This record gives sequence, structure tokens and C-alpha cells, in this order.
Amino acid sequence: VTDILAQLDPIFYPRGVVVVGASNREGNFGRFFLEGFVQMGFERLYAVHPSEREVLGITAYPRVMDIPQEVDLAVVVSPRDTVLGIVEECTEKGVKGVVIFTAGFGEKGEEGRKLERQIVAIAHRGGTRIIGPNCQGIYCPASRVTHFIGLSTESGTVAMISHSGSLSTMLPMAATAQGIRFSKVVSCGNECDLTAVDFLEYFGQDPETKIIVAYLECVKDGRRFCQLARSISREKPIIIWKGGTTEPGARAASSHTGALAGSNEVWEAAFAQTGAIATRSAEEMFDYLQAFYYLPLPRGRRVAIVSGPGGPAVATSDACVEAGLQLSDLSERTKSSIARVIPPAGTSTDNPIDLGMGSAFNPQWYVESIEALGNDEQVDMLVIIGGSWHPNFGDMVLGAVEAVKKPAAFVTMGMMPIAPTKGIAVYPDGRRAAMALGKLAKYHRFREDDWG
Amino acid sequence: VTDILAQLDPIFYPRGVVVVGASNREGNFGRFFLEGFVQMGFERLYAVHPSEREVLGITAYPRVMDIPQEVDLAVVVSPRDTVLGIVEECTEKGVKGVVIFTAGFGEKGEEGRKLERQIVAIAHRGGTRIIGPNCQGIYCPASRVTHFIGLSTESGTVAMISHSGSLSTMLPMAATAQGIRFSKVVSCGNECDLTAVDFLEYFGQDPETKIIVAYLECVKDGRRFCQLARSISREKPIIIWKGGTTEPGARAASSHTGALAGSNEVWEAAFAQTGAIATRSAEEMFDYLQAFYYLPLPRGRRVAIVSGPGGPAVATSDACVEAGLQLSDLSERTKSSIARVIPPAGTSTDNPIDLGMGSAFNPQWYVESIEALGNDEQVDMLVIIGGSWHPNFGDMVLGAVEAVKKPAAFVTMGMMPIAPTKGIAVYPDGRRAAMALGKLAKYHRFREDDWG
Repeated sequence: VTDILAQLDPIFYPRGVVVVGASNREGNFGRFFLEGFVQMGFERLYAVHPSEREVLGITAYPRVMDIPQEVDLAVVVSPRDTVLGIVEECTEKGVKGVVIFTAGFGEKGEEGRKLERQIVAIAHRGGTRIIGPNCQGIYCPASRVTHFIGLSTESGTVAMISHSGSLSTMLPMAATAQGIRFSKVVSCGNECDLTAVDFLEYFGQDPETKIIVAYLECVKDGRRFCQLARSISREKPIIIWKGGTTEPGARAASSHTGALAGSNEVWEAAFAQTGAIATRSAEEMFDYLQAFYYLPLPRGRRVAIVSGPGGPAVATSDACVEAGLQLSDLSERTKSSIARVIPPAGTSTDNPIDLGMGSAFNPQWYVESIEALGNDEQVDMLVIIGGSWHPNFGDMVLGAVEAVKKPAAFVTMGMMPIAPTKGIAVYPDGRRAAMALGKLAKYHRFREDDWG
Repeated sequence: VTDILAQLDPIFYPRGVVVVGASNREGNFGRFFLEGFVQMGFERLYAVHPSEREVLGITAYPRVMDIPQEVDLAVVVSPRDTVLGIVEECTEKGVKGVVIFTAGFGEKGEEGRKLERQIVAIAHRGGTRIIGPNCQGIYCPASRVTHFIGLSTESGTVAMISHSGSLSTMLPMAATAQGIRFSKVVSCGNECDLTAVDFLEYFGQDPETKIIVAYLECVKDGRRFCQLARSISREKPIIIWKGGTTEPGARAASSHTGALAGSNEVWEAAFAQTGAIATRSAEEMFDYLQAFYYLPLPRGRRVAIVSGPGGPAVATSDACVEAGLQLSDLSERTKSSIARVIPPAGTSTDNPIDLGMGSAFNPQWYVESIEALGNDEQVDMLVIIGGSWHPNFGDMVLGAVEAVKKPAAFVTMGMMPIAPTKGIAVYPDGRRAAMALGKLAKYHRFREDDWG
């Protein structure tokens, strides 16, 4: 069980890092990677450069072998034809993992694939593992390892696996802006050695990781992937965005990472079998991540909607049903508690609860309704559709939701900014909130069924 | 043909407006509506109040009959039991249209429906038309008529029909923030007299209106609606968000506006037949509106994608196919023009064009690609996925798109803010861009087919 941890922990928590192909030139990736590590405050950092003895203030050596200290991770940004030699040096030096950023290998055809096989053969002689080529590498804020400039130094509970280098930096940046923090991220490129399946196994065992998200274009060992995904899903939700589900998409994936994308039907079966959560876009992935990150799992799939705007309440009811949720029947006690505070006309105490236009001036109506729904045994989770411009509205809703201890999604209608936090996820649109809660309920059901 | 214009123009362009039930009290809708008109700068404004002779600086009268000037539009905010009497007065005064904001009529059951019938019978004796009850009323920036505080005074080309008062204010506010301007908006509530179908006919003939959006929970005369929608769609796109498509949603719609929502199947047939564009959420509605507002119609459904990030290029290809679009085959000339500017590795000159990570530092690669695709006869429209933090990136892309004169959607990945403008619509996510372009292409096809 600990083999994958023993293999990969030294790469994610390296004693030393070298950037091979480091450069002083603006707009050069050799500079870019080195700057990322400097910004993150990684201390045992070295550069390899053919002639310079210092790059961006970091000591540079002509070759990896010349570095006197221990190096566990190498990031290779130098030209394709130099990579084989560099990997050979890294292997001799005892480097544990080599990230090959350089592209132009397997994704360009048979010659590149042959070169990849040679690289792996040399690396494995010394127990060195390869990440990439054609990848962005790894990010692990706890150890200050990074693969891009501007990523957070704060550690969290989300791990990401990505066949897209861009997404492996863009998603963490966007999520960080919403308060979500990552344990580890890996962009695995062409996967000539370590694959997404290896990283799935690693993140499954990693004690820092509680949620796994993945952008995948293909999976090299489908059977092992499904076995791992199913067993990890019992403990940690796995959210997967699968690219290349159509013929043109699959063709693009093949020139992107040299992968065969696998048929849509196979993937649908895999999702059904493993409990993994399917998404179809970066936005959806982020929506679902937010729900799993901030909300407890619901006990069931019965949702109550409370809204000032009547139209969005109606349409969000539709969306909830389409997302596999049920509109809760409310107890008479709940209805009468709410009826006591809102006017009789232009409102409804049936689910979806329509607080009417007056709620714009009376945020307390939301608070009383949330409390009543919190006490209703038939309500598993809440959708709260914003409709008040009262300056304390956000805080009042947050306070009420916190007391209730049921998963809640807040819908801003694009107009009432409120930040997500423990117990409340935030969406601009009711349909997106419904979809995210639907995934939460579905995952809860998978866990219940699977554990028996 | 001009009958509906003759009936409704005086209501949207009134010689005088009275707010009945005007109030000085904060948090009272009688104050809220009056404030809206004051803010908009509507000049021939009057108030009716039982005792005050001035409200918010506006001359108040005890009854509508007491106003010495012409009044074409009355907005009624007073309690339910006063409404019948007020409508009677309005009819005697010769008021052309009465907006009844007050709720508690048909949506509450048979007694309310009876009251609605009495109101209509009295109004029709004098040729007065009723909007509502249980509605937000109308907005027409050209005439300074409004139904909410904070709406733009600038006039535009979009008309909106809404069975939700909240949406009739929220959507225009959100759209205004993106530079979209409205000709007219109506929230038609319980439709005891004038219906969404009447307003559809009116907006179809209104020379100010070029695009119609609608949030509908039911349609009272389905046959007339379909006939009108089909004939108007030939000239003006109609974007419809239908609420109440599921059983719980339909039940909620019934307590919202007293309406029977009609089956999903009927609506699907209506969309297929009329060329109207279906949406399922406020966000989608706004996405499609943006495309129709800012973009020319494409000549066909062949799309080219140009992207820095490889993963989003792959996944957006999937989304385009799922949205009914085709990935263009690119000419050899296009490919070689692009190959001349980008590196050979980590990129692709096949569609989707992958500019690689280097595009982050080289926005010119986007410009050259957009120009090449603009000259390619096999490309009907563009999706541009952002990937550069260069400070001039936005302006460079806009300039290139403007020269190309093909519909273009820019995908920000939530990170590269760029404002939509003529020729370019802007989306945070590739799937949303693909869906919007899909609707544009579908509508173009409807128009071609329908005109023969």
C-alpha cells in the first residue's frame, strides 16, 4: 500500500530542485519556472545553464552532475534533443523525479514515441521516474514546489490531475480566488512513465488530499483506473472532466497529448461503475468542486428552495428535478412558521418558498425561512435564491445557514456577491446550484450503496 | 397590422403617469415605483394618496379623477380591495393602460380570478387595458417609463417579456452591465387582460425592437403564440426561457402566476416549429442574448477554434460538436500561415489550433491566426480561447476580430476580462461559447429554410 507514497512523496516533497534550461531572458519558460520557485520561497533551488553561473540570483551549474547537494526533482525546459542526455545525468545523480516540460515527443509521431521509450529505459535503470514530457509538472504548496507563477503558498485538501498544463494552473488560480486550497497538482502530459492512474493511486493514499479533480483526455490502463477510482471514491470524491468525447475532440486530444481518447460509452460506464462525478466543462468542474469543498454531504436528495424572485424559484425547481433531486414536502409547522413572517399575497409557503418582492427590504424573512427549513426533517438541503440588497443580507444568510448544518447553495442571480464558506456554496444561477447539489446527493447515494 | 401598435404605444409612451398608492415610507413599493420614475427623469408624473398632497416632491391627488392633466399610464400599488375602484376611476379618466402591481388575485384561487374578471369588464367599457395583476409592469427607456430603481436611461434594441417581475428587472440590469440596451420590457403577471402573446405581437411590430427575450411560465393562446413566433422569428430572434417544465416547477408556476404551464412535449414542438431559441436558465438566456446582440449571423455552422491552452481547445471541440456545429477543415494556406508564426512543438495547426504555452507571451500569434482564419472560406465563425496576460492582448484580439467580420466568441477561462462589443461575444467557459454559437447557427438555418 505504501509503495506509491514511497515513490512519489520524495518528488512532491523534494530535498532539492533543479531547473534545467534556466534562463534570464523574459518570455522564456526557463526563466518562468525558476521565477515560480523563487516566488514560492523554495530554498534548495539550483539552475543548470551551459555558460551562466547565476540565473535570477540562483546558483547555476553546467550540468546536473555538478550540483554538490541532493536533488530529488528536476524540471527540464531545454530543447528536445538535449532531454535524453539530461535524463541520463539526472539518473546518475539519483534524482527521484524528472518533469519534462519540453514538447515535441510522442504527440508528434513515432520518432517522438521512440525517444520517450529511450528516456524511460534510461531513467528506470536508476529508479528515476519521469513526469511528461509535454507537461507543466507539479505544484505542492506545502513543500513550495510549483509549476507556475502566482499560485498560492497556502496548502489545502484538493488534489488535481490534468492532461492539460494550462488547466493545471488556471483551475487552481480560479479556485484559490474562491477560497479553495490545493494539496497537490500534477500535469502529466504524454505520460511516457508516470500516468494519471499512478497519480490517482497516490492522491487516494495521500493523507493531505480529501477531494480529487481531474481533467483527462485518455487513461492508459482502464481496468486499473476503474478499480482505483471505485475504491478511492468510497472515501474521497473524484470529479472528472473528460476531454475528447467526440470524434473531433478525440482527434485534437491525440495531437495534444498523443493519446487515444477512448469511446464515450466506455467512459459513461466507468462513471456509473466507479462513483466518479462527471463534468463537461471547466466551469462545471469548478461548480462541483465548490460544493464538495464547502458542503457536508446531504442525508438524502430532498431539497427546499427559498427565494425572493418568483420566476427563478420556478425554474430552479425544474432544474432540481432534472438534476435528480426531489422537492421536499414541507411540514405544516414549517409552512406556518414562514407564513407568520411573510405577507399572504404575492408569496407562497409551498416548496419552492416564494418570499415575494417584499423580501428585497426584509432579509429577516430569509433568515426565518432558513431556520424553519433547518428544523424540517423532510429537508436534506437548501437552495437560497438571493433577492435583497440589504447591506447585512449576506451575513444574515450565512449566519442562518451555519446554524442549520445542512448543505446550502446560494444563488446570486449575478447580482448579490457573497463569498462561499463552510456550509454554503455560491452560484450565479439556480440551474448551476441545482446541478452541483444533484452531484452531491448522487455521490452520497453511491457511498451508502457501496458500503452497504 | 397597426392595431396592436395603436393600442400599446400610448401605454409605453404615455403623456402622463400616475402612481396610485404612492408613499413616503422607506421600504414601501408605493415609494419605490415613484422613486424609479423620478430617477428616470419622467416629467409628467403624478401621485394618488388618500391624504398627502405631495409625495417625494411629486404632486399628489386623492383620486385619479382629480388629476387635471392627461394620464395614459397608471401604476397601482394600493391594497387588493381598492384595485377594482381604482381601475373604474382610471377607465373614466381615459387612462390607456393600468399596471396592477398588487398581488393576491388569480394566483390565490377562484375568488381572485372572479375579481380579475370584474376588473377587465370595467376596464374594457372604456377601452382601458390591464397589465397584471401581480406584475412589475413596464420599462421603456426612450419614454422614461420604468418599473424599478437603477435601470438605464439609454435605449437599445432588446425587448423582454417576463412572467417574473424579478427577472424583468434583474436581466436588464445584468445585461446593461455588459453594454446591452433594451427597447422595452414588460412583466405581465397574471395576464387578466393583456398577455405575453399580445406583447409578442407588439414587439414583433415595434420598429425599435430587433431581438425579443422572454421568460414564460405559460402561454394563454398557444396557437396564436406559435403563429406569431414563427412569423416574427423570420426577422427577429426570439429567445425563450420556459419555467415550469417539470411537475414541481409547473405547480410552483401555478402559485406564482396562476398559470397552467403546459407540457414539455408541447413546448419542444413549439420551439422546433417556430424557430424560437430555447434556454434553460437566466445565465443561458443572457449568453444567447449576448451572441445575438453582438454578432452577425454566421453563413454556416463551421467553426474554427484558436487557443493557447490545449485542454480547453480539446474540450471546446467536444462542446461545439454537441452544440450542432462542425469543426472546419482548414485550407493548407491557413495552416501554413499559422505554422509560420508558432513553434513546431507543443502546438497544432489543425483545427482546434493549439498555439501552445508560448502564446502567453506572444499575443501576436492569436492575431495572425485570427487573420488567417478570417480569410479561410471554410470557416464560418471563430472561438478564441484566451491564454495571454499580455497587457494589449484584449485590444489586439478585438482589432483582429473586427477586421475579420465573422462572428467570434472569446473565452476568458474566468481569468482574462475583456468586454463584449460589436463582432465579439465573451464567455467565461468554452462550452458556453459553443452553445451560444450553436444557437446562432441554428437560427440562421431556420431563417434560410423558412424563407426558402
